[in-house]
Amino acid sequence: MTDHGRSRAVIEGVEPKIDGGQFPIKRVEGEVVEVQADIYTDGHDVVECVLLYRHAGEKNWTEVWFEPLVNDRWKASFIASLIGRMEYTVLAWVDRFRSWIRDLKKRSELDADIEVNLRVGAELVADASKRAAGADAEWLRSVSEMICGITPIKDRLAAAQDPRLMDLMRKYADRQFATKYDRDLGVVVDPVHARFSTWYELFPRSFASEPNQHGTFSDVIRQLPRIAKLGFDVLYLPPIHPIGQAYRKGKNNSPKAEPDDVGSPWGIGAREGGHTALHPQLGTLDDFHRLVRTARDHGIRIAMDVAYQCSPDHPWVKEHPDWFRRRPDGSIQYAENPPKKYQDIYPIDFESSDWKELWSALAGVVQYWIAQGVTIFRVDNPHTKAFPFWEWMISTIKKKDPDTIFLSEAFTRPKVMYRLAKVGFSQSYTYFSWRNNKQELTEYFTELSRAPVRDFFRPNLWPNTPDILPEFLQWSGAPGFRLRLLLAATLGASYGIYGPAFELCVHQPVAPGKEEYLNSEKYQLINWTLGGANDISEFIGHVNKIRKENPALQTDRGLQFHPVDNPEIICYSKMDALRQNRVVVVANLDPNHVQSGWVDLQLQTLGVEQDRPYQMQDRLGGGHFLWHGGRNFIQLDPQVAPAHVFVMRQHVRSEQDFDYFL
Amino acid sequence: MTDHGRSRAVIEGVEPKIDGGQFPIKRVEGEVVEVQADIYTDGHDVVECVLLYRHAGEKNWTEVWFEPLVNDRWKASFIASLIGRMEYTVLAWVDRFRSWIRDLKKRSELDADIEVNLRVGAELVADASKRAAGADAEWLRSVSEMICGITPIKDRLAAAQDPRLMDLMRKYADRQFATKYDRDLGVVVDPVHARFSTWYELFPRSFASEPNQHGTFSDVIRQLPRIAKLGFDVLYLPPIHPIGQAYRKGKNNSPKAEPDDVGSPWGIGAREGGHTALHPQLGTLDDFHRLVRTARDHGIRIAMDVAYQCSPDHPWVKEHPDWFRRRPDGSIQYAENPPKKYQDIYPIDFESSDWKELWSALAGVVQYWIAQGVTIFRVDNPHTKAFPFWEWMISTIKKKDPDTIFLSEAFTRPKVMYRLAKVGFSQSYTYFSWRNNKQELTEYFTELSRAPVRDFFRPNLWPNTPDILPEFLQWSGAPGFRLRLLLAATLGASYGIYGPAFELCVHQPVAPGKEEYLNSEKYQLINWTLGGANDISEFIGHVNKIRKENPALQTDRGLQFHPVDNPEIICYSKMDALRQNRVVVVANLDPNHVQSGWVDLQLQTLGVEQDRPYQMQDRLGGGHFLWHGGRNFIQLDPQVAPAHVFVMRQHVRSEQDFDYFL
Repeated sequence: MTDHGRSRAVIEGVEPKIDGGQFPIKRVEGEVVEVQADIYTDGHDVVECVLLYRHAGEKNWTEVWFEPLVNDRWKASFIASLIGRMEYTVLAWVDRFRSWIRDLKKRSELDADIEVNLRVGAELVADASKRAAGADAEWLRSVSEMICGITPIKDRLAAAQDPRLMDLMRKYADRQFATKYDRDLGVVVDPVHARFSTWYELFPRSFASEPNQHGTFSDVIRQLPRIAKLGFDVLYLPPIHPIGQAYRKGKNNSPKAEPDDVGSPWGIGAREGGHTALHPQLGTLDDFHRLVRTARDHGIRIAMDVAYQCSPDHPWVKEHPDWFRRRPDGSIQYAENPPKKYQDIYPIDFESSDWKELWSALAGVVQYWIAQGVTIFRVDNPHTKAFPFWEWMISTIKKKDPDTIFLSEAFTRPKVMYRLAKVGFSQSYTYFSWRNNKQELTEYFTELSRAPVRDFFRPNLWPNTPDILPEFLQWSGAPGFRLRLLLAATLGASYGIYGPAFELCVHQPVAPGKEEYLNSEKYQLINWTLGGANDISEFIGHVNKIRKENPALQTDRGLQFHPVDNPEIICYSKMDALRQNRVVVVANLDPNHVQSGWVDLQLQTLGVEQDRPYQMQDRLGGGHFLWHGGRNFIQLDPQVAPAHVFVMRQHVRSEQDFDYFL
Repeated sequence: MTDHGRSRAVIEGVEPKIDGGQFPIKRVEGEVVEVQADIYTDGHDVVECVLLYRHAGEKNWTEVWFEPLVNDRWKASFIASLIGRMEYTVLAWVDRFRSWIRDLKKRSELDADIEVNLRVGAELVADASKRAAGADAEWLRSVSEMICGITPIKDRLAAAQDPRLMDLMRKYADRQFATKYDRDLGVVVDPVHARFSTWYELFPRSFASEPNQHGTFSDVIRQLPRIAKLGFDVLYLPPIHPIGQAYRKGKNNSPKAEPDDVGSPWGIGAREGGHTALHPQLGTLDDFHRLVRTARDHGIRIAMDVAYQCSPDHPWVKEHPDWFRRRPDGSIQYAENPPKKYQDIYPIDFESSDWKELWSALAGVVQYWIAQGVTIFRVDNPHTKAFPFWEWMISTIKKKDPDTIFLSEAFTRPKVMYRLAKVGFSQSYTYFSWRNNKQELTEYFTELSRAPVRDFFRPNLWPNTPDILPEFLQWSGAPGFRLRLLLAATLGASYGIYGPAFELCVHQPVAPGKEEYLNSEKYQLINWTLGGANDISEFIGHVNKIRKENPALQTDRGLQFHPVDNPEIICYSKMDALRQNRVVVVANLDPNHVQSGWVDLQLQTLGVEQDRPYQMQDRLGGGHFLWHGGRNFIQLDPQVAPAHVFVMRQHVRSEQDFDYFL
C-alpha cells in the first residue's frame, strides 16, 4: 500500500519525450516547448493541472496552466529562454472546488438541498482562506461567510461565481493529493546556430598563394571575405594537427607515401604533438587565434574536427599504451576491416581499464580548443566510439560551455545515427547525400521532421564531402550541382558543402563505381583556381541569401510535401514557427531535361484560403505569380534553374478590407 | 562518470512494453511472449544478446538467445507457462570472440599477420577456459593451444571454426561489460478463460417456479443445464446481497417504491448485512455453495458482481462513517449528477483519511467470495473509484489467487477504459454495443487487436446488458439480434449476453430515445417464458459451438479485415497463434434486406497460395465451397442467416502430392 493512495489524478502520454524520458529533447534559444499529456481522474470530478518547468540548478518550478484539448488531452507551453539545460514535468490534482462550482451551476435554486450545497462550497472557500494570507485570506473568508450567509440564495449563488473567487481558488487550490509525473524530462537549449547554420569545409593547406606550397592559417584568412560573401557562417577545417609519418598514405590513398607527400590530416599525431598541437606548416597558435577572430568579424564560426584516433607517432601511444589494444606480440592493434588494413591509424580502446583517465583526456582535447575560441566541433566517426563516452563527454562540456555544438559525422545504420543524436550530438550528418528521387526524399525528410525524431535529431545536409562524391554528381554537371545544393539548402535548416570542389563542380571519381574523389585533397595539396565557366558560386550565394531572408528555411519543423503529377518534380513547403513566412519549393529532379507538371498545393495546411488568390514570388528565378486554388502548372528547365523558390503571400481579409500582407 | 563506461552494447525499443514498462502485459497460460528489441553497439564488433525471463519470486533468470531480424532489431520468445506473474528483460554485450571469428574468415592465410591474429583468438579461448570448469575447461585449453600451435595454418584455422568451439564460447562468453536493460518488464499470466469466455447474465430472483415469487439459488441451479447447452461457460449474477430500504427505487426506476417492490440489486446493504452477506430470499450460503459446485459440474464458472457502493442501510455507514463524504449538516453525501440525485446510493470516498483501512475492507469483500469458490468478478463502474486502489487491490488478490479474473464494467472515455485495463483488470467491457456500421467496427477492432492495446486490454463484447438495450436492437427484430450476437461471438474471444432478454429478442425501451429496458428487471421481478417464435436460443447455441471448435475464434490477436465492395457487408478473418485454424466471417450488417457484393480476401496474409483453390466450409449455414483467388461473390439474406462463418482450408502441396488438410 503506497502513501499515494489518495492521489486520484492520472498523468500519462507526456510528449515530447525521448525513449520514456531517458534522453533530453533539443531546442534552440527562444523556441517554444509545447507539452501535451493525457490527464484525467476517476469519476466525474474536475481535474486541474499545471506544467512545471525550470532551468537546471533551480530549485523552484515555474507553473503554466494546461488547457484542455479533446479526449482528456491537455497542452501547455514554455519558452526555452536560456542556453543550457531545462527540465519540465506535470502536476495534476482533483479540484473539489471546481467540481462543486460546476455542479452548482446545474442545481436548481428551489432544490431542497441548495442550502447544504452552498455550505459545502463555503467550507471549501474557508479552507482555501487558511492556505492564503493577508488581503487574499481576508477576502476569501468574507466570501465564504457570504455564501453560507442569510442573504437571498440568488445573491449567494452570484457570490460563489465571482470571477475573482475563481482566480483565488486556483491560486490557493488544495493540492495535498496532487499527482506529480514520475519523471523530470530534460531539454538541451542550444544557441540558434545549432538549428540554422550554413557550413563550408576546406583544407587549409590548399590555399597557399604559390602553387605546390603548403597553405597556412593566413591563407585561410584571405579566403574569409569570399566565404562570407557566399553566405556561409561556419567554416569547418579538417584536422589541423601534426600528421604522423608511420604508414603515411600517399596520393590517391596509396599505401606508400613519397617523401614529399603531405599525408592525411586524419593521421593525427607526430613528434610535434597530438590533438592539442597545430601542424607546424599551418602556423602558430597565434595565427590560429587570428583566424578565429577574423572569421568572427566576418560572421563566421570556426568548426574544428575531432577525430579520436592516433597515428603510430602520436604522443599518447608512448604515454598511454593502455588506451590502445595490444596484440599478443606486443604491437598495438591498428584499424582494420579485414582484409583491409589501416596501419596508419590506431583506434582507441574504449574497453581500456584506464577508461576514466582516457575519457578525461578526450574531453580535455575539446576543452583545450574551447579555450582557444572554438565553439563548434565536427566529430569524425563517432559511431566507432562507445555511446556512454559521448553521453558523458558532451554533457560534461556543455555544463560549463552550454553554447558548444557537436556535429556527428556518422554515416551508418539508422538506429546508430539516432542514438548518437539522443546521447547528445547537436547536429548530425544524414543520408541526404544518397537520397535522389522523389519518394526517397519525401520519406526520409518526413521521418526527420516528425516526432519523435525532430525532437532529438537535427539534420545537417551535405551534397558532397571529401569522402563522398555521390554518383549523381558524377554525371549530372553544373545543373546537378545546383539542384543538389538547392535541395540541401531548402530541405535542411543546416547544410554544408566541401569546397571549392563543390562550387567548381569537381566530379571525377578515383575509379568508376567509387565515391572517392580522384586526386583527393585528403592525400595531397591542390591548387584551386576559382572562377570560370563551371563556377556556380553566384548561384550558391543567391540561395544562401534566400535562406537568410526567410525564417521558414531556418527550421526543419514546418516541412510538408505536396503532390505533383510528375515523378521528376518534387514540391514541398516550409513555415516558420509563427506561420508568418511560407516558402514553397518546386524542384526538377531531372538535371538533363525540361520537366513540367501540375502541383497540388495543400492550401489548408499552409493557412491559405482556398477561394481567394495568393501571390507566389519566385525568389530564385525572380518571377511574380498570382495563383488561384491548389492546382497550378509548373515547367522547369535545368539549364535555367533547378527550382522555383516561392515566397507565398495572401492578402488578409479584414473588416475594413485593408490590403496588407501577412 | 558512471561505473558502466565500458558497457558498449545498447538496448532500446523493447516491445511489448506498456507505458515504458510501468504496467505489465497480459498473457494466458501457455501463450507465447515474443520480445523484440533494438540491440547494437558502436563500431563493427559483434553484439550478442539474450532474453531473460523468470517467474515472480525466482531469483535466477532463464536465458533465450535472441535472433537477428533486420535493421538492428532482434527477437526471442518464451512461454507464459504458469499462472501468476512473470518478468522479462534483456542482456547484451560486445562479443570479442565472435568478432574475431567473423574477421578471421575474411583474412587471407597468406597475410603476414595471420600468426598474430590466431594468437589473439587463442588468448580469447584461453580466457574462456578460465571461466569454464571440468571437461569444458580442459577442451577449451587444448583448442587454444592448437590455435596458436605449430601445426599448419589451415589446421589451426579449422580448429578455430569448430562448431563445438562456437557453442562453448557462447556458453562461457565474456560478459563483464554486459548491458542490462534498465527495467524488468512484467507479465500477468491468467488462466485461459481470461482470454476465451462466453458469458450469460441473469437475475436469480426472476427464475422462481411460480409467477410473482422471488427466485432462489435453487431456481438458478435448474437453469444450469439450459445455459450449459447454449454453450456458455460463465454465469454472471448481478449483486446477490441484501437490498436497502431507504430511498429504494420502484418499478421502472420510480423514485418511490411500493411496499412489494424488490429494489435494485445494486442498492447494496441492509439490516441483514452488506457486501459479504446474501439476500435472504435467494438462499443460504450453503445454497450458494451448491450453485457454485453444480455450475462447475456443468463447466460453468459463477461471476460475482462487485459494486463498491452502499445503500444508506449498509452496515458500513454506521460502522465506518469516515469512508463516506459528510456534508456540513452531518448527513452523508449521496450519489448525484446534478440535477439528478441517487439518494439510494452512498458512494465511497477514496480520499478518506482512513483509506488504508477502507482499501483492506474492499479487498476483503473479494477475498471472502474467493473463499466461497468464486474466481470471476465483474466490477461495477470501476471508473468512479480511484485507480491506485484498483492497482493495489487486483495485484494483492492475484498474489495469493493468481487465477482470479476481474471484468471492468466501465463505459466511459477511451483513456479511462484503457487505464483500468493497464492497472490490472483482466477483461473489459467495450464500445461494441454502439459500433454498428462497417467503418466503426473496422476501426475499433483494428485498434483493439494491435499493439499496444492488445497487450493490456482484453475485450468482452456485450450486445446487450440490463443497462443497455442498444437502439439497433430496438428496431431490427430477430435478424438484428442474431447479427449482433454473431458479431460479438466472432469479433470477440470473450462475449456475453444478458438473458433471457436477449434470446427472447426483448426490444421495448422504457421511452423512445432511451436505451433502458421497459419494465427493467433491475427494479422488478420478471417471469420469463422461454421458447416460442422469437426465441433465438438455437442460433446462439450453434454459434457457441462454432466458437468452441475453432481456436481462431478464441483469441483476439489474429483479427484482420478484408475489403468488400458493399458497405453493408463486412468481412474479417481470424487465425490462431499457430496459423492452423483460419476462420473467415462475412456478415450482412443490414438486418432488413438481402445484400450482396464481392469480397476481396487478402490471401497472402492468410497464408493461402494465390494460384491454387481453397475450401470454404460455412459452419453457420452449412455450405461447402471451392474458391479460387481472393475475389468472390457473396449474397446474404438476413431472414436466413446474418453471415457466413467459413473455415478455410487449402491442400498442402507436398513433393509426393499427398492430399491432406492443413
